[in-house]
Amino acid sequence: MIFVLKPGVSKPDLDLFIQKIEARGFKTFLSTGTDHTVVCLIGNTATIDLDAVVQTNNIVEYGKRVTEPYKAVNRTVHPEDTVVNAGGVLIGEGMFQVISGPCSVESEDQIIKVAKSVKASGATLLRGGAFKPRTSPYAFMGLQEDGLRLLLMAKRETGLPIVTEVMNQTQLPLFEDVDVIQVGARNMQNFDLLREVGRSNKPVLLKRGLANTLEELLMSAEYIMSEGNSQVILCERGIRTFETSTRNTLDLSAVPLLKQKTHLPVIVDPSHAAGLRGLVAPLARAAIAVGADGLMIETHNDPAKALCDGAQSLDLVQFNDLMDDLKLRIAFEGKLMGTA
Amino acid sequence: MIFVLKPGVSKPDLDLFIQKIEARGFKTFLSTGTDHTVVCLIGNTATIDLDAVVQTNNIVEYGKRVTEPYKAVNRTVHPEDTVVNAGGVLIGEGMFQVISGPCSVESEDQIIKVAKSVKASGATLLRGGAFKPRTSPYAFMGLQEDGLRLLLMAKRETGLPIVTEVMNQTQLPLFEDVDVIQVGARNMQNFDLLREVGRSNKPVLLKRGLANTLEELLMSAEYIMSEGNSQVILCERGIRTFETSTRNTLDLSAVPLLKQKTHLPVIVDPSHAAGLRGLVAPLARAAIAVGADGLMIETHNDPAKALCDGAQSLDLVQFNDLMDDLKLRIAFEGKLMGTA
Amino acid sequence: MIFVLKPGVSKPDLDLFIQKIEARGFKTFLSTGTDHTVVCLIGNTATIDLDAVVQTNNIVEYGKRVTEPYKAVNRTVHPEDTVVNAGGVLIGEGMFQVISGPCSVESEDQIIKVAKSVKASGATLLRGGAFKPRTSPYAFMGLQEDGLRLLLMAKRETGLPIVTEVMNQTQLPLFEDVDVIQVGARNMQNFDLLREVGRSNKPVLLKRGLANTLEELLMSAEYIMSEGNSQVILCERGIRTFETSTRNTLDLSAVPLLKQKTHLPVIVDPSHAAGLRGLVAPLARAAIAVGADGLMIETHNDPAKALCDGAQSLDLVQFNDLMDDLKLRIAFEGKLMGTA
Amino acid sequence: MIFVLKPGVSKPDLDLFIQKIEARGFKTFLSTGTDHTVVCLIGNTATIDLDAVVQTNNIVEYGKRVTEPYKAVNRTVHPEDTVVNAGGVLIGEGMFQVISGPCSVESEDQIIKVAKSVKASGATLLRGGAFKPRTSPYAFMGLQEDGLRLLLMAKRETGLPIVTEVMNQTQLPLFEDVDVIQVGARNMQNFDLLREVGRSNKPVLLKRGLANTLEELLMSAEYIMSEGNSQVILCERGIRTFETSTRNTLDLSAVPLLKQKTHLPVIVDPSHAAGLRGLVAPLARAAIAVGADGLMIETHNDPAKALCDGAQSLDLVQFNDLMDDLKLRIAFEGKLMGTA
Repeated sequence: MIFVLKPGVSKPDLDLFIQKIEARGFKTFLSTGTDHTVVCLIGNTATIDLDAVVQTNNIVEYGKRVTEPYKAVNRTVHPEDTVVNAGGVLIGEGMFQVISGPCSVESEDQIIKVAKSVKASGATLLRGGAFKPRTSPYAFMGLQEDGLRLLLMAKRETGLPIVTEVMNQTQLPLFEDVDVIQVGARNMQNFDLLREVGRSNKPVLLKRGLANTLEELLMSAEYIMSEGNSQVILCERGIRTFETSTRNTLDLSAVPLLKQKTHLPVIVDPSHAAGLRGLVAPLARAAIAVGADGLMIETHNDPAKALCDGAQSLDLVQFNDLMDDLKLRIAFEGKLMGTA
Repeated sequence: MIFVLKPGVSKPDLDLFIQKIEARGFKTFLSTGTDHTVVCLIGNTATIDLDAVVQTNNIVEYGKRVTEPYKAVNRTVHPEDTVVNAGGVLIGEGMFQVISGPCSVESEDQIIKVAKSVKASGATLLRGGAFKPRTSPYAFMGLQEDGLRLLLMAKRETGLPIVTEVMNQTQLPLFEDVDVIQVGARNMQNFDLLREVGRSNKPVLLKRGLANTLEELLMSAEYIMSEGNSQVILCERGIRTFETSTRNTLDLSAVPLLKQKTHLPVIVDPSHAAGLRGLVAPLARAAIAVGADGLMIETHNDPAKALCDGAQSLDLVQFNDLMDDLKLRIAFEGKLMGTA
Repeated sequence: MIFVLKPGVSKPDLDLFIQKIEARGFKTFLSTGTDHTVVCLIGNTATIDLDAVVQTNNIVEYGKRVTEPYKAVNRTVHPEDTVVNAGGVLIGEGMFQVISGPCSVESEDQIIKVAKSVKASGATLLRGGAFKPRTSPYAFMGLQEDGLRLLLMAKRETGLPIVTEVMNQTQLPLFEDVDVIQVGARNMQNFDLLREVGRSNKPVLLKRGLANTLEELLMSAEYIMSEGNSQVILCERGIRTFETSTRNTLDLSAVPLLKQKTHLPVIVDPSHAAGLRGLVAPLARAAIAVGADGLMIETHNDPAKALCDGAQSLDLVQFNDLMDDLKLRIAFEGKLMGTA
Repeated sequence: MIFVLKPGVSKPDLDLFIQKIEARGFKTFLSTGTDHTVVCLIGNTATIDLDAVVQTNNIVEYGKRVTEPYKAVNRTVHPEDTVVNAGGVLIGEGMFQVISGPCSVESEDQIIKVAKSVKASGATLLRGGAFKPRTSPYAFMGLQEDGLRLLLMAKRETGLPIVTEVMNQTQLPLFEDVDVIQVGARNMQNFDLLREVGRSNKPVLLKRGLANTLEELLMSAEYIMSEGNSQVILCERGIRTFETSTRNTLDLSAVPLLKQKTHLPVIVDPSHAAGLRGLVAPLARAAIAVGADGLMIETHNDPAKALCDGAQSLDLVQFNDLMDDLKLRIAFEGKLMGTA
């Protein structure tokens, strides 16, 4: 249940109203929009007489029952698009950003070279894995702390904000200078990690799990927002199906459906979805057309020698050519890139 | 295994070559391109010395082993795009067509009204179900032969070629004046039906089954082509996954992947994929951007009263608005609609 | 909606009652149990006052709304187990049958040899494919009519009733001497075929489709029963999932769930489910324990040379050893094999 | 690649051999069986001449290339069944254990009552959730540390070893007196957690993820074993498929397939798989028949009031009745329960 307050409610009036509600055993969650503040009640609201609350509290404009289990991320509660500020780059509401870089940070040379090149091609954020979740305990696990250090070096060289994955909450202190903390697909329901990134003040890029429904993705975003962090970017990256000719099946329906249900921005990762270099370009075009707020595309200076995911990485020339095409399409959609 | 012949081979030379091959126990399949004729061998070709064949037959330019189990539909065998002529409207290779109309033909009034309206909005083919496969034996099964009659009436009124579904091979004699015979998702592996439509001289629209891989779709197209009918249009319409917020999961990766593997045109049906009206427009845009050769979109003059699939049908105004947008996008891709 | 009639209702009284209901625009379906006759109404029964019908028709004991879309197959409508008589062998209600034989009938020698052997080992019905649905148009399609002829020969030699697959309704006249007509997984929603086998007086073995829900399986059985044929055996044979280490994923939960929802017998095909010989024995044991009414197990005299499905076929010694084990388990469950 | 050593190799000879191999850049992993010690090489072994190693090291009986990516868990490396000692109760190799208890520990009364009752019915281990992973941040999260304390109290009262779930590695110090640490389905690929439980000396119950293949499950077990902990129990608990009539689809084929590929014990959780109380008994029976080494069954003193998973929990009488049946079946399989 939500209560939309009249414009210009004073702080003491608001506090009094919340106090009254919480005294009845509900948790509350505040969503502050440009015009209205929305008070969202968590708990079994079946016992509340909605009309009575509206009539007896003159700061309330109207009330509404929200039946979805997610509240803070719900577009009903917060009708305007959320815009995430990722190190100065805006994600959401008419902006379109392209995050690019290698699967893993491998060396200073490599990450600086890739960063400069993707920036020149038009990417607006840099990705690179320092901590790598790998199916096998014997595979390359990333350069760990050194990888983070090299990423920050590439950020200083290029000015590109950086996006990199956290694997468990004990690593979070190392992410202080990172611009966007990525929670990977396998950790989408690592609820303790979600809570911890919810307590940070960093934008969080939350990837959909391989076998998770959109409602579960929204509930995981709700975990982050319920701890007070509303800077959440959702990412569709393919789901696991019976089809074996692609690594995963990219579910582009997820983009418009998520944008109906939530105010959070939604981006698409065509590289991990397809697992095939030749599908990255057409799927990136489709993601723009379907209404995504951004793309995450793997690039590598020498894909044949990449320490992971070489088969799906574009080389720097391929990425540059793709960006020439994508810029026209982003403009066609009436969207802007970068800092606006 | 295929043999690409030199340009300008004479009929007697060709016949002699085929005769020699068939004498060794292989079936052959001919693919005639603009420059080259390709002879495709079916059977266990492990025993054939490819180089020896090339060197001892001077009409052969080169030979190649084709490892995929599909031959006739394989782009290796037939590198140029196939263009299907559907009652004068061309599908494939730079053309983009929009098939629209109701799930079921319900009455003369309805189908004529819808046909005129979608034509005015820019649709280039008319769809409408006369024989309807339904999960329940107690549901509306379509107007059957009357439905076909009404569709043909709508064709005469508007000039739009018509596309309609056949449910079993005994119905085929009724489809003589139909422009494109649709084989539905549930019949994608009804092999006897595939053979029979392969023996007809009509274009066939073959929908991917709910749980069929792309390789299986290509093998079903191979059934049709192996009987001599090369006028096959493939249609991606969503696959069955764990996700429940959409009826099916539209697999747009299928479009570029199919176009790599086969020369046949590929269209997309966003209506059946999503099962939700609100997703038809974004998915239609994505289908254009991902490289599809056409769209199939359900429309109805009064979706709330539709005898089937009302929830996913656009009304005529919504379709008209959508077409205004799609035409700009089709032009952006450098494609043409209609008869070229 | 169903009406359960009092015991001993006379034919004229029953006819009168049905006439009154049909006059109100409903189709009816009769289910005759040992004690009670049940009249099942098909159509939108929202307008019927159930109590009024009971009170004004003294042949009616009580009425009940059935919310599932399937009626004739519903256990609510027909609480007793249906027992199917397959050429004298009883399937359902305390009986347990084992159907065995090769994927394809290949020769007179082969089918006679396999039939005699599986009979000696304890199989109670013989399977063998004459018409084979194959993914590739270039694969072996079965011996067709000759295959049927050889199967009937094996039946005469051994006395085993035979089960074999029909691929389309035009073949049905050839199945006159077949004991059980199999509708394969790919044809589970070939609705015209379902209707036709519903009009025959033969037991039908209906296999679950690769991507079909249990409700869809029941609706397909409803198609058959709605045409008057209540001799339907359901068969779980694995569904398509993301797991690649088995051909399909055998869904044994389907067995107890189907037996809750319907009165029809349910058997299990572990051979097609797993696609691996080594899993047939453990899955067969599990199928008995989970409550199935029978098994369908592929056997071959020389699996290494089988024209199809060799990898999943047991040889005759393996089948004999397995049957020794299974017989103890069938006895443990308190079930009987054969003709009772 | 593995090297199976001759019986009775001395420690210095073994150390010398390992030193030589590691000098060539390989990691090694030792598996000590009853007769033989196996040295397993991790790394790219393509450059090793297997025969040369065997011929020049007279402590080596033979060598073998292992192509699967999992080594330590591979049955090839360790042919005998691993038996896990869970607080005195043996899991694997002819033993069969039943783990039972509530989804969540709710109160002292509840857990003591349930523990005594399931023990009396024949359960040999007690389960109960203290830390609960929940899809919604607003759901009951378990009693946390208090829950662990109550479980240990129930252990003291009944003598039953306890099994409970860890949600992240920072909680591990609290699990010192727990007998078996459970890693839940959502954490199956939480690789940092796997490493940490691999460094503990506790048996680990590793549940298969909702959308994880058997190979991925084995790789996750390999993470645990590669850190030195070989006390790993695998658990099949249902996978996510398109079928909606059960919560998940229990994949019983996984049991015999895992037991072919690995020496680790495999148990089955029918409660979470089906999500329906009425399916627990038939699926438990099937799990015994298919060859599982144990069962995990949710029970509750008052399922209607359970704080989680009430719909799938048996009440104490239902569990007692089920155990009466299961004991006969365990005996039928020739297996023993308890401490042997």
